[in-house]
Amino acid sequence: MINVTVYNEYVHELEDESIAAVYPKGIHNCIADFLGKDDDINVRTVTLSTVEELTEDVLKETDVLIWWGHCAHEKVPDEISERVYNQVMCGMGFIALHSAHFSKPFRRLMGTTCSLCWREGDRERMWNIMPSHPIAQGIGDYFEIPAEEMYGERFDIPTPDELVFLGWFKGGEVFRSGCCWNKGLGRVFYFQPGHESNPTYYIPEVQRIITNAVHWAAPLYRQLSVECPHTPSPEAAFNS
Amino acid sequence: MINVTVYNEYVHELEDESIAAVYPKGIHNCIADFLGKDDDINVRTVTLSTVEELTEDVLKETDVLIWWGHCAHEKVPDEISERVYNQVMCGMGFIALHSAHFSKPFRRLMGTTCSLCWREGDRERMWNIMPSHPIAQGIGDYFEIPAEEMYGERFDIPTPDELVFLGWFKGGEVFRSGCCWNKGLGRVFYFQPGHESNPTYYIPEVQRIITNAVHWAAPLYRQLSVECPHTPSPEAAFNS
Amino acid sequence: MINVTVYNEYVHELEDESIAAVYPKGIHNCIADFLGKDDDINVRTVTLSTVEELTEDVLKETDVLIWWGHCAHEKVPDEISERVYNQVMCGMGFIALHSAHFSKPFRRLMGTTCSLCWREGDRERMWNIMPSHPIAQGIGDYFEIPAEEMYGERFDIPTPDELVFLGWFKGGEVFRSGCCWNKGLGRVFYFQPGHESNPTYYIPEVQRIITNAVHWAAPLYRQLSVECPHTPSPEAAFNS
Amino acid sequence: MINVTVYNEYVHELEDESIAAVYPKGIHNCIADFLGKDDDINVRTVTLSTVEELTEDVLKETDVLIWWGHCAHEKVPDEISERVYNQVMCGMGFIALHSAHFSKPFRRLMGTTCSLCWREGDRERMWNIMPSHPIAQGIGDYFEIPAEEMYGERFDIPTPDELVFLGWFKGGEVFRSGCCWNKGLGRVFYFQPGHESNPTYYIPEVQRIITNAVHWAAPLYRQLSVECPHTPSPEAAFNS
Repeated sequence: MINVTVYNEYVHELEDESIAAVYPKGIHNCIADFLGKDDDINVRTVTLSTVEELTEDVLKETDVLIWWGHCAHEKVPDEISERVYNQVMCGMGFIALHSAHFSKPFRRLMGTTCSLCWREGDRERMWNIMPSHPIAQGIGDYFEIPAEEMYGERFDIPTPDELVFLGWFKGGEVFRSGCCWNKGLGRVFYFQPGHESNPTYYIPEVQRIITNAVHWAAPLYRQLSVECPHTPSPEAAFNS
Repeated sequence: MINVTVYNEYVHELEDESIAAVYPKGIHNCIADFLGKDDDINVRTVTLSTVEELTEDVLKETDVLIWWGHCAHEKVPDEISERVYNQVMCGMGFIALHSAHFSKPFRRLMGTTCSLCWREGDRERMWNIMPSHPIAQGIGDYFEIPAEEMYGERFDIPTPDELVFLGWFKGGEVFRSGCCWNKGLGRVFYFQPGHESNPTYYIPEVQRIITNAVHWAAPLYRQLSVECPHTPSPEAAFNS
Repeated sequence: MINVTVYNEYVHELEDESIAAVYPKGIHNCIADFLGKDDDINVRTVTLSTVEELTEDVLKETDVLIWWGHCAHEKVPDEISERVYNQVMCGMGFIALHSAHFSKPFRRLMGTTCSLCWREGDRERMWNIMPSHPIAQGIGDYFEIPAEEMYGERFDIPTPDELVFLGWFKGGEVFRSGCCWNKGLGRVFYFQPGHESNPTYYIPEVQRIITNAVHWAAPLYRQLSVECPHTPSPEAAFNS
Repeated sequence: MINVTVYNEYVHELEDESIAAVYPKGIHNCIADFLGKDDDINVRTVTLSTVEELTEDVLKETDVLIWWGHCAHEKVPDEISERVYNQVMCGMGFIALHSAHFSKPFRRLMGTTCSLCWREGDRERMWNIMPSHPIAQGIGDYFEIPAEEMYGERFDIPTPDELVFLGWFKGGEVFRSGCCWNKGLGRVFYFQPGHESNPTYYIPEVQRIITNAVHWAAPLYRQLSVECPHTPSPEAAFNS
């Protein structure tokens, strides 16, 4: 069983009727709903108003943390971002969606600005450039998102360990839309689609990719802490 | 002309006579001396007691910042670490030496704990596994460091973009001793040798590697800031 | 069920009594025996004298091909090496053991000389530098091989996509001993231990690593062929 | 002085008047002309009809070999492709242009099929995703190619060590258009633009990129051969 925690700041949906029309129960519950159809996944949700629930204990029990945030990144306490970072170091998986490129924990993990170019809605075609990757299973050569906020290069990220998807936008831009990193003992996946005003998280391919990513990011090995140990000489031990 | 700033916390040399005997003018001046022999390099030095000299203006004029720190990482103000990080994003080169693996700016850039295993002095043999790399020019298949603190795996760093040197220690350990990353617009090099009690920075190969690394890390392209711009559609521009 | 084919040239064991004493049934059967204990793995073996059994049909049914060769690389027909290469492109996993660094299919896949330095037997300590990797599961910080042929850097391989193990040799060398690559749709793992005169394949950690590697390299996605298709404009299709 | 050899099969230009109208002296001479404006570059050209001039001696004196081929890949003798491969292993730079993705030496170096999707002419926008890279100097955020053959993903190449350019095509495709690899001691760059019927090699940005790539690929270190040496124990030497 994979324990997934979905964090969504849940601000747009409450403040804007047009957004609420797209995600009546919030983006977090939309994601929880489709993940919940996978018998191997157990989901809980957290929002900005309940962000203090992301205690060390909850994070230690979380195999994969999914993060959606946009207008309220700064309201997430630094301490909680640091907790998330620490658990990724110890093995927890982390999936950053769309505007979470600018969330505190993602920027902390990347060590870069995570800056990009952006523009209002456009049509996107998502190309699968690594069909052998676990996250790409069930996805064809490409699929389409009729309306999505444009995120374009240069995306200021460290070189991805694996680049799985490339986004094409009708307006003329490209984007490294699906990127994997090993960070500490944890696995991190960034996936670009999912603006709050678009029904992106209802698209079957998007649901499949996020579900695949949960399986991929679930830790095989987890530590309680990462330390810098003083060690005796292994050679000495070898000789004894 | 490459403007290099060498930061050394300069604490051990002042507090411990045996360290002062190795580096009478401090590690920073030892490094400044050998770099100064390169006609293309202009060096200034900063220590913990003068760390406020690392203003934004000084960092903007710095092509490559070299960092040595060990016992006083926490005394470097967060604000200065953040300034360093910002300039690397904009293109400044950064070279972290030995125990600077735990310095604030290096950890900030890596986004990992940078933890490792360590042990008192041992003999090290440094293997050159990428002889075509600019930083490895003039270095043979390997060279030896008669006495060096042991730094061993697992070194908790993100996958290096280029792995140039591997360290072998007589006591039975190995280490990714020379690692390169592109971070933002800047180039980062970590080089493991250089414990304060060992005369490592007098070894010709070590001096050559650090000098090579300065040339490698000097920016070809530098920005004043990295932003996340709202853009018109390039396609629209293309059509006009 | 994962279908594994183990190729061993099986020459040393037949020609040299001291080798036969280590692997009485041949290296291939030693490997087949420990893999066979895994209920999810189905094994067949092939040797140089039966190498023609590596038909296209057999390779298409093979999920992971393990290769051990040393003195008879040149006796493997080019056509069979090319068949192996083609199936890796289509998704078959490939595990090259020890002196298979110089085998035809491995060199074909790497596109480099795969040259290294070598020396008669030495003690090796194998360091696990990526404990979160599927292939490293069940392996501690390091394990020891009392006697193994020394393989040392520079190992002329393309940058591994993932570097899982580093070998330390008492005589003073280091080696990238466990390396992963994505090649075409297939996954490739190179693992350095396993000289014919040493009982290396009886070591539990070695068996665990090879078993883990079989699971890791088994394809999630496989094609019948890889082509370079002429395509209509997807945009045109999108508009229609 | 960097010695560059430009190979162009030079078939289309001789057989088709419309192609000859674009490149009256052949693609090779167009490239030689703009490279020749760089005082540090010395150029010679070779075509399919003179391909035997690519002797071992000529290749050893060549710092960077540029390759353009399309309809006559198979007419290049295997022996010459192998010579090229060997010199890259020893340090020679290699730049593959456009349809040279299917040339013998490029495929030999990659160890993959180098398959891609393609379609007749389209508009391309080339995005610079690594503005700090030596090959991207002088190039803005993007530039445009009014007419170019579409090359689209999936491009079956090994993970690039550095991904510098991404191509966007109006028809809906994306492509990893500028890719770098370290192979052996040599540096390899693939650059997608340059169909024979388009005046692509007259575009200033394209000329700048190829010129930059020549400087980047020129070897700092070159060997006469790459061998697999039997070595004495360095430790023994260290102790003596």
